[in-house]
Amino acid sequence: MGVSRREFLARVGQAGGFQAAFVTMHSLGLMAPSAAATAPLALAPDTGKGVRVAILGGGIAGLVAAYELRAAGYNCVVLEARGRPGGRNRTVRGGDTVTLQDFPAQTCSWETGNYQNVGPARLPSIHRTVLGYCRKLGVEVQVEVNTSRSSYLQNDNVEGGKPLVQREVINDTRGHVSELLMKCMSSGALDADFSKDDRDRMLSFLRIYGPLDEAGKYNGSDRAGYLKPAGAGNDAGVLSQPISMHTLLEENFWQGILFEEAFDMQATMMQPVGGMDRIPYAFAKSLGDLVRYNAPVTEIRKTANGVRIGYTEGGAAKQVEAQYCICALPLTMLKNIPNDFSAPYKKVIDECTYAHAYKVAWESRRFWEQDYNIYGGLEFVSEGCSPIWFPSGGLFSERGVLVSGYTDERSSPFGRMTLEQKLAESRKSIERLHPGHGKELEKPIYVGWGYVPYNQGSWIQSYAPGEERAPGAGVNRQGAPAHPTAAKTGTNSGYQTLIAADGPIYFAGDHCSHIVGWQEGAALSSLRAIQMIADHTNAARLAGAHRSSTQA
Amino acid sequence: MGVSRREFLARVGQAGGFQAAFVTMHSLGLMAPSAAATAPLALAPDTGKGVRVAILGGGIAGLVAAYELRAAGYNCVVLEARGRPGGRNRTVRGGDTVTLQDFPAQTCSWETGNYQNVGPARLPSIHRTVLGYCRKLGVEVQVEVNTSRSSYLQNDNVEGGKPLVQREVINDTRGHVSELLMKCMSSGALDADFSKDDRDRMLSFLRIYGPLDEAGKYNGSDRAGYLKPAGAGNDAGVLSQPISMHTLLEENFWQGILFEEAFDMQATMMQPVGGMDRIPYAFAKSLGDLVRYNAPVTEIRKTANGVRIGYTEGGAAKQVEAQYCICALPLTMLKNIPNDFSAPYKKVIDECTYAHAYKVAWESRRFWEQDYNIYGGLEFVSEGCSPIWFPSGGLFSERGVLVSGYTDERSSPFGRMTLEQKLAESRKSIERLHPGHGKELEKPIYVGWGYVPYNQGSWIQSYAPGEERAPGAGVNRQGAPAHPTAAKTGTNSGYQTLIAADGPIYFAGDHCSHIVGWQEGAALSSLRAIQMIADHTNAARLAGAHRSSTQA
Repeated sequence: MGVSRREFLARVGQAGGFQAAFVTMHSLGLMAPSAAATAPLALAPDTGKGVRVAILGGGIAGLVAAYELRAAGYNCVVLEARGRPGGRNRTVRGGDTVTLQDFPAQTCSWETGNYQNVGPARLPSIHRTVLGYCRKLGVEVQVEVNTSRSSYLQNDNVEGGKPLVQREVINDTRGHVSELLMKCMSSGALDADFSKDDRDRMLSFLRIYGPLDEAGKYNGSDRAGYLKPAGAGNDAGVLSQPISMHTLLEENFWQGILFEEAFDMQATMMQPVGGMDRIPYAFAKSLGDLVRYNAPVTEIRKTANGVRIGYTEGGAAKQVEAQYCICALPLTMLKNIPNDFSAPYKKVIDECTYAHAYKVAWESRRFWEQDYNIYGGLEFVSEGCSPIWFPSGGLFSERGVLVSGYTDERSSPFGRMTLEQKLAESRKSIERLHPGHGKELEKPIYVGWGYVPYNQGSWIQSYAPGEERAPGAGVNRQGAPAHPTAAKTGTNSGYQTLIAADGPIYFAGDHCSHIVGWQEGAALSSLRAIQMIADHTNAARLAGAHRSSTQA
Repeated sequence: MGVSRREFLARVGQAGGFQAAFVTMHSLGLMAPSAAATAPLALAPDTGKGVRVAILGGGIAGLVAAYELRAAGYNCVVLEARGRPGGRNRTVRGGDTVTLQDFPAQTCSWETGNYQNVGPARLPSIHRTVLGYCRKLGVEVQVEVNTSRSSYLQNDNVEGGKPLVQREVINDTRGHVSELLMKCMSSGALDADFSKDDRDRMLSFLRIYGPLDEAGKYNGSDRAGYLKPAGAGNDAGVLSQPISMHTLLEENFWQGILFEEAFDMQATMMQPVGGMDRIPYAFAKSLGDLVRYNAPVTEIRKTANGVRIGYTEGGAAKQVEAQYCICALPLTMLKNIPNDFSAPYKKVIDECTYAHAYKVAWESRRFWEQDYNIYGGLEFVSEGCSPIWFPSGGLFSERGVLVSGYTDERSSPFGRMTLEQKLAESRKSIERLHPGHGKELEKPIYVGWGYVPYNQGSWIQSYAPGEERAPGAGVNRQGAPAHPTAAKTGTNSGYQTLIAADGPIYFAGDHCSHIVGWQEGAALSSLRAIQMIADHTNAARLAGAHRSSTQA
């Protein structure tokens, strides 16, 4: 045709304006998504002037999208099926009702001030994006205690089911490992691997790392704690006897001790003061009526100009038209919403699977603080509901809310239990760890995300049958729910499909990130989608620069 | 004489009343101190009816003593030299002046809300006594972050002085140790030590403990963090390269990584919201005018009935008489107060030495949070002022107060520096760890406890020349001030002297406990002294039961 692409677009723009230019760009497959959106956005405030974006879902991805698009001058709307913002970010408090498919409604009657974050409940310090929004939105943050050396581990088949204190298990394990290596090195086993100097340094190191005595033996240490604590006068304290390596190895008893070393579980962990939902509510407050509540999406259509989204509000069918759509609904929901997605997207949506994480939370006297010196942190049992998770907020108050059981119940015996059975099972874990205290648990709330309307799943588990997981996923979080870190993108066509735009539709949510199951992933996926939309908008505007962009 | 001791005492009591009975008991050496006072006190509320106790020093030991003695019906008074309660428990805030011997006065001008606990700054969860008082007195407590995996270690001679992140050092160290042991075990080095089953379990364990690859190699792991973090889209993240064991061994670079495993440094650690001095002020509020402020003790005398304590108040010489005295002054102070102590006590007081711990605190923009994702926790440098200690309170606020330098400066080059030099040295550590940020430090406050009037020392270091230290002291707290855990009582006559009563005088303070340098030790020593006094009172009253006990 003798016309460059650039020139062609400019002509389209001149003829049909901004709108026409960007539709043409969509159809030509130009402006492929850039993947460099993890850097903070720096969009001119008029980037989106006259451009409308429909955002589906008022979870963290949707809220971040609206917040940033508005700042860049876009005209946007968030359609949220529920009467509250946040999606999986939900905090349950006294007075709230938990409604699950296939289960009786549960009404919470915990004391004022007590709560449970039934969805995300941790903010790692390395999650700069979400923490950045907390800072920007004035959400007060406090330390979340992810590990306490005073908390317990228990296995029915080890030491007759006796719970063992984590400070003993962790420090005795290191002690035995150091002793064994010292023994090998002392007998010359690794002489070829070390210079003389390094070998000497290594032996000195092991003496302290263990710690080991002069003969290279691990005899316990105050790191593992006291049978009888030191005090005043002649109370010199009596050290605990070391747990044998044989016992630690039995039944993989040591599981749980590496939980705190998982990258996204490492100190310092944080949480909003008063509940994780302070974050979505802070967004919602800022966004005002940009968010339409009780407005479930019923239809997602592509049009000549972008998208048309059908939804209901107050029982009435409504629709919104926009040039772009950020689709931040769970893929589980998209299965049942009539849509114009291209075939590869329909395939991912059909084939993906979601985990069904659950939590069981109870209110109780804080026996863990008052009787066990445990303030926050997690405990692990090998059989039954695990982990136990103690509250980091309201330390020293009389009553608190703990979690007993937080894992994927899909395809598990727990998953097939009635509510009553689940609660009994949850209580049993407390009894295993803290005999006599199971009966102190009151006012249970069970939230199984597989049964939550508008979710039907907790986080994506696979994008396609047989897909490969990221290396190490599930390894570092012994005893904790296997947050599936994102599938290996290189080998995963489902994931690669999702992170590319389907014409005017941009998918967002933690499932479009390598940080699945975390708000950080949701927020970053949203920033990335916005950057892609902004790049597209800018290019289209450049192409259609002769016409007013406000006609759109 | 044909009279039993019991009968003799009863006769003394009949003749001279309660007072005479207990003086006689003192002189007969009866009622030797019991050492079982670490159990909570359970004294009848009229135990001390008509009995007066003079308490010297309004630090934690003195305040606990007054609180508990009052509850047991004793008539008591606390003589405190300063205008505030707490002793070494001091919190410095804007508006405060720090006065040190041999140094110019320093006036603090930090922002409202910022503070530094220049004395004790941590409450381990296992310190039940002090935490119990917080609970009882309504002192709000929050988490103190004692470790952050995002914080740094640095040594001028390792890697060209480059600071390394603790998550790398800690996790790479474990990885290398696991690989080395795996190598030895795979070559059969420990076959004789394990059953076949345990050997297999041990290898499986090491694979995850490391973690190691199938070949048994440590190739790094996400526990050690990312060079480029994972994000959305194709940002899969790039793992950090492992630090070699050779580097970790250089110059004992690994020091600092075991700090968090010291028994009294383990998670969960806590602190009062707003400053450690909330504790003494809560005691003081409860005690009201039982505490006399600006009332330094000038004389400690034994009398026929107990003690006579000389002190000054408003410039006037005053005195108080009492049956018992709890002497909770630092031993450094007792050297210069005329007293009637028996020879062995004078000897300990003369011969003991005290550490001179110091802290340098600065106000700054929270660059550690904003630029480094560090929220609380400690950093260690091998040369110069160490550790660095970031605030756990006020997370996410704009400015905060950090400590750069907290060790014993006695006999150290730092100890011989001028204030200006000390501050420059302190700033240098920040520059080593966070280049470019040394200049953000403002409004320094140096508190050297060796120079604090009415203290002249931070905590006891030895009870006598050449005395033996507790095993492990100083080993577990690499890079941190060597809190001397109490000397081995079995071999230490100085300590044994102090924990026995000198007639009517009972010594208290952390130096009378195995938890030196901690408020818990002070509180427990006080409870122990009270129990001894109560036992003595009860026995004396029994002996003098025929007479009114109120005449005393």
